[in-house]
Amino acid sequence: MKRTDPVIHNRGKMDGPLTSKQLDSYEDNGYLMLDDVFSDEEVSIMSEHLNDTLAAQRGQKSETVVLEPEGDEVRSIFEVHKHNDFFSRLAANEHLVKAAQQLLGSDVYITQSRINFKPGFSGKEFYWHSDFETWHVEDGMPNPRAVSCSIILTDNYEYNGPLMLIPGSHQWYVSCPGETPDANYEQSLQKQELGVPDPESLNKLFEKAGKQIDRATGKAGMVLFFESNTMHGSSGNISPLPRSNAFFVYNSLENQLEEPFGNAKPRPEFLANRDQIKPIQPRSTFKEKAGLK
Amino acid sequence: MKRTDPVIHNRGKMDGPLTSKQLDSYEDNGYLMLDDVFSDEEVSIMSEHLNDTLAAQRGQKSETVVLEPEGDEVRSIFEVHKHNDFFSRLAANEHLVKAAQQLLGSDVYITQSRINFKPGFSGKEFYWHSDFETWHVEDGMPNPRAVSCSIILTDNYEYNGPLMLIPGSHQWYVSCPGETPDANYEQSLQKQELGVPDPESLNKLFEKAGKQIDRATGKAGMVLFFESNTMHGSSGNISPLPRSNAFFVYNSLENQLEEPFGNAKPRPEFLANRDQIKPIQPRSTFKEKAGLK
Repeated sequence: MKRTDPVIHNRGKMDGPLTSKQLDSYEDNGYLMLDDVFSDEEVSIMSEHLNDTLAAQRGQKSETVVLEPEGDEVRSIFEVHKHNDFFSRLAANEHLVKAAQQLLGSDVYITQSRINFKPGFSGKEFYWHSDFETWHVEDGMPNPRAVSCSIILTDNYEYNGPLMLIPGSHQWYVSCPGETPDANYEQSLQKQELGVPDPESLNKLFEKAGKQIDRATGKAGMVLFFESNTMHGSSGNISPLPRSNAFFVYNSLENQLEEPFGNAKPRPEFLANRDQIKPIQPRSTFKEKAGLK
Repeated sequence: MKRTDPVIHNRGKMDGPLTSKQLDSYEDNGYLMLDDVFSDEEVSIMSEHLNDTLAAQRGQKSETVVLEPEGDEVRSIFEVHKHNDFFSRLAANEHLVKAAQQLLGSDVYITQSRINFKPGFSGKEFYWHSDFETWHVEDGMPNPRAVSCSIILTDNYEYNGPLMLIPGSHQWYVSCPGETPDANYEQSLQKQELGVPDPESLNKLFEKAGKQIDRATGKAGMVLFFESNTMHGSSGNISPLPRSNAFFVYNSLENQLEEPFGNAKPRPEFLANRDQIKPIQPRSTFKEKAGLK
């Protein structure tokens, strides 16, 4: 089903760092990669904080800390924008927040944040999915007016399981097979809860993309913005190279979570923030860090 | 443990199509990709034969036909150089056999052959391994004097799980952790039977390769030769694109299988030919095909 919502909301309303060409590219593809946001020094500082934070959580038990399936290595830590000074400032980074404001056409807040550390040799695949489907059905996000921002903190190569995206896929809602033809927008999204996108639909998205799959490869420090409905996934990582990143989901202040549109109970706060929402005030991450030390 | 066997055997003894530069590259890297062996028309003929052969086997039960874990789709057919006219001729293809003779420095025969068809969306990963370890321990291959030849019959992209190789890895035998320091060559190989290569050894191979992993990407018709001890593997394939190939293992006539060097029984003939071995006579695959029709 063709998307009816805009991709860039209220274009031109909010000032920000993204050029007209970058906005066009995001609108066409459903994602945008930026390699000029952070300096090498800033990348080192971010990596250090990420590693320190993971090391500090080792052996801890907490709802927001996800361990590897085998062993007790920390895989992800959620809610870092609330519980960690450095990542609070990074989530509010002027460049990132203003870019998100430009894309979403309003003030923004964080619905979910995490840092990820994926060891080499054993990273598992993530099958194709659109985040908005989960956020709508399970979290009650009304419309696709959110953007994920991944700050990549290790070099990403073709061979260490980089994020893959189908260009233009954000323009289509994929329904599950067997759906009644007259199903409406919300019903079709609810059905997706039951399974993964079917091969026929994925084939169609792939054909429409001119048989292209893009990969988020690049140097540490690269920033990837991708639209909430963009179809993405990743292969496993048998290479020796670990992959780590900081991940923030910015949502429009005008698109706050309601009751879930599916039948399930809302997911917990650490996966989908709905309490005490207020707009992020953009600030400079690294200058303030110097002051805080 | 450093390899003591040569990579190219009796260099210069056998005539063939590989240039001195190509031989050097194979010697250094442990593999070689050729994109000028087959014409587009020949690729079409090969693909047609592959698809026809797979289709003909659908629903059949046979030791040499391997089905997908779920469903009854054919995944691989072994022994195609014995049971199929076209693939017999392809296994004897002048260009391929003479290249194998140049690399192995003698007459050659086929120890194993198969055609593979890997559907899109669901292809599973193959973890890092060196074939020679299995062939030595389980099949009784005396020395690393064999070469695998894969004729790729679908375009291979970065995102559909291409074969990955660690350049230079053929120069090292990887022992399993815990081995006694004075273990000899065969003992170290036998130990590998017990598990997969350990992360430390893979890291070392990766470091020695200058932190490189190569991928066999390219157009349909590409031919990949890789040395029996080259460390290789592949990620899963969640892309919509299937991958198919024809696969022949050429062994030196002077390196025929003996009793397995491990404790296991020899694997069956269709996985490791040891009966009625005779050298392949190189012939032209496609001209003869025209004659046979």
